[in-house]
Amino acid sequence: MFIAEGRKVVSELLKSPCETAALLCLEEKERAWKPLAARYLSGSRGTGKLYLLDGGEWKRLSQDRESEGVMALARIGPRPSWRDLLCQDEGDILLLDRINNPNNLGAILRTAHWFGFKTVFLSAAAVDWTHPKVARSSMGSLFHLNIAAAVDFAVALPEVSRRRLLVGGDVRRGVNPHPTARRAALLLGSETHGLPEDLLAWVAERWHIPGAGGAESLSLPQAAAIMMYEIGRERGK
Amino acid sequence: MFIAEGRKVVSELLKSPCETAALLCLEEKERAWKPLAARYLSGSRGTGKLYLLDGGEWKRLSQDRESEGVMALARIGPRPSWRDLLCQDEGDILLLDRINNPNNLGAILRTAHWFGFKTVFLSAAAVDWTHPKVARSSMGSLFHLNIAAAVDFAVALPEVSRRRLLVGGDVRRGVNPHPTARRAALLLGSETHGLPEDLLAWVAERWHIPGAGGAESLSLPQAAAIMMYEIGRERGK
Repeated sequence: MFIAEGRKVVSELLKSPCETAALLCLEEKERAWKPLAARYLSGSRGTGKLYLLDGGEWKRLSQDRESEGVMALARIGPRPSWRDLLCQDEGDILLLDRINNPNNLGAILRTAHWFGFKTVFLSAAAVDWTHPKVARSSMGSLFHLNIAAAVDFAVALPEVSRRRLLVGGDVRRGVNPHPTARRAALLLGSETHGLPEDLLAWVAERWHIPGAGGAESLSLPQAAAIMMYEIGRERGK
Repeated sequence: MFIAEGRKVVSELLKSPCETAALLCLEEKERAWKPLAARYLSGSRGTGKLYLLDGGEWKRLSQDRESEGVMALARIGPRPSWRDLLCQDEGDILLLDRINNPNNLGAILRTAHWFGFKTVFLSAAAVDWTHPKVARSSMGSLFHLNIAAAVDFAVALPEVSRRRLLVGGDVRRGVNPHPTARRAALLLGSETHGLPEDLLAWVAERWHIPGAGGAESLSLPQAAAIMMYEIGRERGK
């Protein structure tokens, strides 16, 4: 189970295939949670649970500075293996190595959802994707993605590279991002460490976003957005 | 004057044309600030001021949860008018309408610096660009940009549109972003409100980033990154 907080995030949860085990509402903010509570209870076929919390109880659970007064408990169902996901999904996929910042992870997941990615592999030694900050900064996009966590990339990459055009983001050098005719697997490393050479060894192409301004680096969520955008840029045409 | 906190941010400040009025260092973290202090003092021709703070003093000024132990006071010099900046700079420029989130503003400024934008106009009713969170999330890129704040866009846009290809980001509809032969002025609105129609009336093109995943929106810093990337994408070739 994990906590989803805020109207927008809870609303996305209710729209998604994820199960909502309960809704937690701050008594005094009825205006904020009432429409969501109605949607939840009517959609849950009588199994929905709604708890009203007072200010003190709320404070112990809430992560938001200015809380909107609504949280949900999302149930993490049985997680499919990365192998199953790789076979089931024919689209572009995203592989994230050791992303430690929950806000970065959330931002990247939100972008992935926008560009139609459905499957995300996360490595070990990364931030817990059920961290409330991830749900919050993904604006609930998290619940629309199939996520395999703690994937051993040393084992997965050889298989991924047979089924997708495997490209890796490289902060130092590489070709410009470009539309890919084949479905792609985009592999990105953390903002602090980048991708280690033993993982880059598996990629078919290293992608580097050329800069013109002398800045030291482009931030990871922005670089990820540009690369995901490029992958599908000519598909709709 | 405003406060720049953290090693990376202070380091960018020292590299930039901005004046550093003083360095504030947390006594017990000498390892973190010593190299920066040496650089600052040797570069300031005897006018540099270094203050050692104890833990209690530090806490009253520091904004970072896990402080690295170094801050700088940056002096805001006399600000050129937006008209002067528009005439002096021949490159692409960025116009931001009512951006209220300091982290979003910082992230956008960092990307602008990466893509070689030198001039940024900020509207009134926006977050103060000297907010320490802006400096922090821009990773110091802030100090490398010419910023005109509280610009009246109703007055500025007619003039900008004569000197640049004025494009506006639109979350609902528009043409796909594309490389621009002419130098561009990219106008973006806040994540909450988007651009009002009276400002969009001035743009030559509305740009919209097509999504494929059914997500409700792309986040502003990510959309901004994609548009800035597109503007210059074919220039280097």
